[in-house]
Amino acid sequence: MSAVDDLITEFAKLPGIGRKTAQRLTFHLLQQPAERLTRLAAALVGVAERVRPCAECGNLAEEELCEICRDPRRDAGTLCVVEEPSAVAVVERAGEFRGRYHVLGGHLDPLAGVGPESLRLDLLVRRVSGGQVREVILATNPSMEGEVTATYVQQLLEGQPVRVTRLARGLPMGGDLEYVDGVTLAHALLAQQEVR
Amino acid sequence: MSAVDDLITEFAKLPGIGRKTAQRLTFHLLQQPAERLTRLAAALVGVAERVRPCAECGNLAEEELCEICRDPRRDAGTLCVVEEPSAVAVVERAGEFRGRYHVLGGHLDPLAGVGPESLRLDLLVRRVSGGQVREVILATNPSMEGEVTATYVQQLLEGQPVRVTRLARGLPMGGDLEYVDGVTLAHALLAQQEVR
Repeated sequence: MSAVDDLITEFAKLPGIGRKTAQRLTFHLLQQPAERLTRLAAALVGVAERVRPCAECGNLAEEELCEICRDPRRDAGTLCVVEEPSAVAVVERAGEFRGRYHVLGGHLDPLAGVGPESLRLDLLVRRVSGGQVREVILATNPSMEGEVTATYVQQLLEGQPVRVTRLARGLPMGGDLEYVDGVTLAHALLAQQEVR
Repeated sequence: MSAVDDLITEFAKLPGIGRKTAQRLTFHLLQQPAERLTRLAAALVGVAERVRPCAECGNLAEEELCEICRDPRRDAGTLCVVEEPSAVAVVERAGEFRGRYHVLGGHLDPLAGVGPESLRLDLLVRRVSGGQVREVILATNPSMEGEVTATYVQQLLEGQPVRVTRLARGLPMGGDLEYVDGVTLAHALLAQQEVR
């Protein structure tokens, strides 16, 4: 059954989807009208053909600039620097940020051969030197590589007339102190917030 | 971002895939070469266009007959009756069965309006009356509806010169007696197997 096996194989290549889940998805789709399969196929082709990086910020775009860079209501004076386009979606969901983004396209990882030249750093410096930017918020991942990348960007922007901040690190909401790891707790203690 | 949102929406329609997983899959694919997306799309279209029920047994097929019905080494004297094509894949994986299948296309469910006329029963009777079949193994699901369906098929084949059996019911391998439900345990007690 080459067609069915092909689909199972392709599904099983997706992250978090093993062979059994791939089979379950395939047999589910086999019970749907053929239109359901072709709609999913068309959505995949649409993404493959139309989505590319925004020329300004590196976010996902279907035109030269992404929706956020094209939106005149978004504050061009504040840049949120993230590693990947998926982080843009995460910050957007939080609904608190009205500025624009800069997507680095990864994080520094010397052991894997990812140096500063692999990231969208020149463009960031050019945007910041343009004079319109007042504040840069470093929102790289709270991981070892994300920290290193943030420190590098911070040094890169030294001397530029912009305020550079980091996302607050501390206790995650909805958790129990008992389950918070030591590094997070150390950060939360160092960055105590005054309440009175 | 219509193309990206479309893909997230289509992924989120799959069983067991929520909006967050759909986003994760989409952003994963966005980091892959476009070829990865088009290969998955082609696999979906391939299934939509080529896969149909086998004219003989109702299993998934890409030609008039499925691979198992076309295989002369499979014993046409033994039919394993299952509810869905996915069950064929399950029995095949067990690797013990060398006969052929008959896929009913569901189970009897009068409350949902699924009567005998909705299942591939006429074809089963025709195959069995053909004279080539010596044994029918009822392998419907071990659920209420599966049991009812198996009993119905058993009565339907009464008077035919074939042996009709059911898959053995009993304790699942690798379990602990403590976690076996009462109905399974009752079946296991009723169908004790002699060991000497």
